[in-house]
Amino acid sequence: MQAREVGELAVIRQLRGIFDAPRADVLVANGDDAAVWQPDGPVVATVDSVVAGVDWLVDRTPAAAMGHRAAAVNLSDLAAMGAQPRLLLLALEVPPDQDVGELLAAARGLQALAGQHGALVVGGDLGLSPGPARWTVTALGTLRAPPMRRDQVRPGDVLWLAGAVGQAALGLAALRMGDDQPRLIAAHLWPQPLVALGLQLQAVGVRAAIDVSDGLGLDAQRLAEASGVDLTLDLPTPDWLTPDVRAWLEARELDWRTACAQGGDDYALLCAAAPGLDLAPLGAWPIGRAEAGTGRVHLQIGARPCTVQGFRHGG
Amino acid sequence: MQAREVGELAVIRQLRGIFDAPRADVLVANGDDAAVWQPDGPVVATVDSVVAGVDWLVDRTPAAAMGHRAAAVNLSDLAAMGAQPRLLLLALEVPPDQDVGELLAAARGLQALAGQHGALVVGGDLGLSPGPARWTVTALGTLRAPPMRRDQVRPGDVLWLAGAVGQAALGLAALRMGDDQPRLIAAHLWPQPLVALGLQLQAVGVRAAIDVSDGLGLDAQRLAEASGVDLTLDLPTPDWLTPDVRAWLEARELDWRTACAQGGDDYALLCAAAPGLDLAPLGAWPIGRAEAGTGRVHLQIGARPCTVQGFRHGG
Repeated sequence: MQAREVGELAVIRQLRGIFDAPRADVLVANGDDAAVWQPDGPVVATVDSVVAGVDWLVDRTPAAAMGHRAAAVNLSDLAAMGAQPRLLLLALEVPPDQDVGELLAAARGLQALAGQHGALVVGGDLGLSPGPARWTVTALGTLRAPPMRRDQVRPGDVLWLAGAVGQAALGLAALRMGDDQPRLIAAHLWPQPLVALGLQLQAVGVRAAIDVSDGLGLDAQRLAEASGVDLTLDLPTPDWLTPDVRAWLEARELDWRTACAQGGDDYALLCAAAPGLDLAPLGAWPIGRAEAGTGRVHLQIGARPCTVQGFRHGG
Repeated sequence: MQAREVGELAVIRQLRGIFDAPRADVLVANGDDAAVWQPDGPVVATVDSVVAGVDWLVDRTPAAAMGHRAAAVNLSDLAAMGAQPRLLLLALEVPPDQDVGELLAAARGLQALAGQHGALVVGGDLGLSPGPARWTVTALGTLRAPPMRRDQVRPGDVLWLAGAVGQAALGLAALRMGDDQPRLIAAHLWPQPLVALGLQLQAVGVRAAIDVSDGLGLDAQRLAEASGVDLTLDLPTPDWLTPDVRAWLEARELDWRTACAQGGDDYALLCAAAPGLDLAPLGAWPIGRAEAGTGRVHLQIGARPCTVQGFRHGG
């Protein structure tokens, strides 16, 4: 059934059936003019939209993965600040012929990832309008310690990367070409925001972090500029570059270094820590160093220098 | 210049020039993965989108009015809860050929209304994608007293209306037809969220309220259903129905009663108070009564019964 046939109010009722759940700190959830929430610390807030045909391939993306993505991009921003996710608000604009079954499946994908990371979906807005479906999620979290910030890298800091980069962009390429690269495609379809890791990094004293949503090069550039330091990064050959993947990349004339430097949507965390701090036990690995400077980035990937460029901007 | 020529990052820089302002309770504003905010009470959160061609007439709407609307719909939801607006987050999806000058003018319209009501615009997201421009605003406010809710109307309560209804829908009609109805058109273009009034209503003990964003009939219906009471409403002939407006309505075969019952986007507040409470000094007038019941609404406008129906849903 199409959304225009079912009607906005009926679709909203069905969405509320997916999202509604009581929680003591949420005094008013859905069904009023606004939600009311008692946060347990300073509030971290971010908003990002994902758009059909821009952020995911229409017809090749499971419905649940669309909702998953809408939650993931925002939960990753909270992770980069060291925040515990608490609430998500959803603003949906879908075309009148949007299939309602698919919409509800996408909502369940969003709900699944939100629930996994402790976030409740409250409030929201649904509109039918022309153009591609757009899922806009606002994520609210709380802090137990000072946030990790982009402008807190200091000369002498070691740069650490947690999570892989490059996979999601190549997964998108594989999906587009109809190629069988399950690990890469899974990285694109089901990106995992590193929420627990963000909390751990903050707890051990990491001051500066950014989520790599727009490519390692561009996000490193942002970190360097915000902190007013130069960064030298040396990313080793990634472990996902198996012989099978290499063969596929060669056949398709795709460059894994470019994917690592410029590919977005992996939601790895790039962070900076004082030299004495060992983040390896948390699953991060050291990939560089900060020096006094003016915001320049020297990026080397698999022993070769790379241009610093990135995807479309993200939050 | 078009957005695609200027580039997302450059547009974001210009937007930040409009929005950036320091405030002690905002620890991180723009330029990081997320904003950080120390609220001074329970948080009220709402999100709503407005869409070019759906919520405003492209080519007949001043740019500043688009941004004003995006803020107004959300500030009105906070007003209906009795919340003090504190933060707005903006997610913008615009077509690649979006004129950047117009976009910035719209952003200044949003900023002007936000500032007027004590809200800072922080964080945000900008994407270029096909389809009409969509402005999605998340509004965060704080409470000093229990929120006014839809489900708190009690049998015996008096229903009060603050603000006019019907004007905005007729203003939209006038604008569409190119007719000169400045007061009605202003009501459509520059709706005023009743933020200060919401705070006052809450302070004097009003327990239940809703903003009339989807028409008096539909929003009264929501109030009745949420509270499980029957409502009898008798709206007098509105003061904006001047001889001049009457003549125009007749010439255009438009019905002011339908506009009052079904017209949305006026952002009046409909609220319920115990019989002893006089809200007239605050600028509200009594228009009905709640009785024990099952969520039915009897609506009379200008001494004639009206069907209860409404516009597209709002938050």
